[in-house]
Amino acid sequence: MKVFLGIDWGGTYIKAGIVNSNGKILKRIVYSSSSLRESRAFISEIKKIKDTFKNYHIKAVGIGAPGIINVERGSIYYLPNVPGWENFPLKTTLTKELKLPVFIDNDANIFALAEVRKGAGRGMTRAIFLTLGTGLGGAVIFDGKIIEGATSASELGHVVIDVNGQKCGCGGYGCIETFTGSNRLLEKYRKLKKMVKAPSEVKEIFDRAKAGEKEAIIVWQEFSKYLGKFLAGMVNIFNPQIIILGGGVSGAFSLFKPLLLRVLKAQAMWPQLTGLKLVKAKLNDAGIIGAALLAKEKLYPHA
Amino acid sequence: MKVFLGIDWGGTYIKAGIVNSNGKILKRIVYSSSSLRESRAFISEIKKIKDTFKNYHIKAVGIGAPGIINVERGSIYYLPNVPGWENFPLKTTLTKELKLPVFIDNDANIFALAEVRKGAGRGMTRAIFLTLGTGLGGAVIFDGKIIEGATSASELGHVVIDVNGQKCGCGGYGCIETFTGSNRLLEKYRKLKKMVKAPSEVKEIFDRAKAGEKEAIIVWQEFSKYLGKFLAGMVNIFNPQIIILGGGVSGAFSLFKPLLLRVLKAQAMWPQLTGLKLVKAKLNDAGIIGAALLAKEKLYPHA
Repeated sequence: MKVFLGIDWGGTYIKAGIVNSNGKILKRIVYSSSSLRESRAFISEIKKIKDTFKNYHIKAVGIGAPGIINVERGSIYYLPNVPGWENFPLKTTLTKELKLPVFIDNDANIFALAEVRKGAGRGMTRAIFLTLGTGLGGAVIFDGKIIEGATSASELGHVVIDVNGQKCGCGGYGCIETFTGSNRLLEKYRKLKKMVKAPSEVKEIFDRAKAGEKEAIIVWQEFSKYLGKFLAGMVNIFNPQIIILGGGVSGAFSLFKPLLLRVLKAQAMWPQLTGLKLVKAKLNDAGIIGAALLAKEKLYPHA
Repeated sequence: MKVFLGIDWGGTYIKAGIVNSNGKILKRIVYSSSSLRESRAFISEIKKIKDTFKNYHIKAVGIGAPGIINVERGSIYYLPNVPGWENFPLKTTLTKELKLPVFIDNDANIFALAEVRKGAGRGMTRAIFLTLGTGLGGAVIFDGKIIEGATSASELGHVVIDVNGQKCGCGGYGCIETFTGSNRLLEKYRKLKKMVKAPSEVKEIFDRAKAGEKEAIIVWQEFSKYLGKFLAGMVNIFNPQIIILGGGVSGAFSLFKPLLLRVLKAQAMWPQLTGLKLVKAKLNDAGIIGAALLAKEKLYPHA
C-alpha cells in the first residue's frame, strides 16, 4: 500500500505521521519544535523522523509550514513567528536530504485540504476554512483545489474590514485578524472589565459568557459582528457550500454560531447563501492528514 | 470557420456580435434595451438578432446579463435594475427558441473573460477585474477560469470594507461599492463643495482634480484609499498577476493610479505583490467578445 509522510510544522510542535491513500494515520509522533527553529536542526530532525518510519515504503513527503510559501519553488518567503527562514529553499534541500519527493504549503491550506477530503467538508468542492487562534489563518477550496498563486496565498486573515483600523501583524491596518485574534479578544475583555491583567485563555471568556456575564457576551457579540461581516464578503465572492471554523477560538463555536449566522445572513446576498453550511472543523490531526494528502495529490495529480 | 453569437445585455442597450474563435468581431449591432425589459420582448429581439446574422453558421450563443445568475441552471436569480426577471429560465427558453446551445453568465465575469483572453490581461491565469461605474462589478480569474459557484458569484463589489458603513444596493451595509460608486463620488464632492446639486458626471470631478481643485482631489484620494485597502485584501487572497479596472470611473485611471498603488503597496503582503500589474481595461467590446468566448469555451471545453 502507498503511504505518505505528513508533517505538521507548528510554532511549538512538530507532528508527523504515516498516512495511507485514504487519509488514515497509521503511525504518529509528536515533538516539541522549540529546539528546531534553526534550519539545520529542523532538517536533521525531519531526516530522523523518516528513519523512525523506515519500515514503511514512503512515496512522498508533505509539509504544512506556518508562514508564506512560494509554492512554485517550494521555498519559504517568511515565517511570521520564526525568524531566520527567509527565502529558505526547503523543498530542494529536503528532496536532496530525504531522497524523496517533497511538497510544501501553508498550514491553513493544508488544514483546509484535510477537512474537505476527510473531515467536516468531505466531498465539498467549494469551501472556506478559517483557523481562529492567535491569528486568523485562512484558505479557500474552489473547484476542489486550494486557491493559491505563485505564493500560498488565500490569506483570508489579511482582508481589511476597517480602513481606519489598528495595526496588524502583517504590517497592514484593520485586517479581520485584528478583530478575531485571541489576544485581541482577551484585551477587549480586559478593557470592558477594567481589569489590570487579562485572563490567560479565551476559554475563560467563553465560560463567563455561558454563565451570562455581560462583558463576556459583548466580546462574543463584537467578534461575531466582525467575523460575520467579513464572511459575508467571502460568501459573495465564492458562493461556498460550507464554511469550516477551526483553531482554539472555535471552542466557543456553540456560543457564537447563532450570533455569527444572524450577521452573515443579514449581510450576504441571498443567492450566495443558498444551501450554505457553517460548521466546526472535525479532524484532530488535520495537519498531518492534509500534508500527506498534499503529497499524494501532487505526486499523482490524475489519480 | 466556427463563429459564436455574443450578446452584451446592459441596462440601456443590447450589443450583439458575430465573433470568431479568435475573439475577433466580424459583425456587430447595437440596440436600445429600454423597450426590452420585459422577458417576451427580450426573447423575440434575440430571435431577430439571430435572423439578422443568418448568413453565419453560429455554433452557440453567449449572454452576459446584468445580475445574479444561477450558472448551473442558466437561470436568472434577479437583475438589480430590471424587475420581473426573478427565477427566469433564460437558458432553457432561449435554447428552445433559437435551436442553438446557449450559455449565460454575469456581465462582469464576461468582461473579465474577454480581458484575460484578448485584452489587457492576455495570457494571464490569475486576474482581478473590476468595473467601476454606478456600482462596482467584479470578477476573479483563477487558474484561467472564472471563479463562480452555483451562482455567478465573485461579487467583489459586495465585500464589506466598513462594518459600520452605509446601506448598499445589495441590502447589506458598508460594501466597497458604497465607497466607489459614481453616485457616491458625486455626492461626496457635492458635500465637500457645499453645492446644492452635484455635477452630473464623474468626469467633471476628474477634470477639476487635474486642474488642481482641492475638493476634487480629496474625492479621488478617498476613493483610492478605500479601493486600495479593498484590493490589498483581494491581492492577499488571490496573489493575482494583474488587476484590470474598467467602467466609466476608470476614465480617471491616470489620476488615481499612483494614489491607489501607494495604498495597495502599504497594505498588502509583499510576497503577494510580487510582479503585480495594475492596468486599465483595453477592449471596447468586451461584453460581446467575452459572451462569445464563454459560448465557445463551454461548448468546446477541451479545445
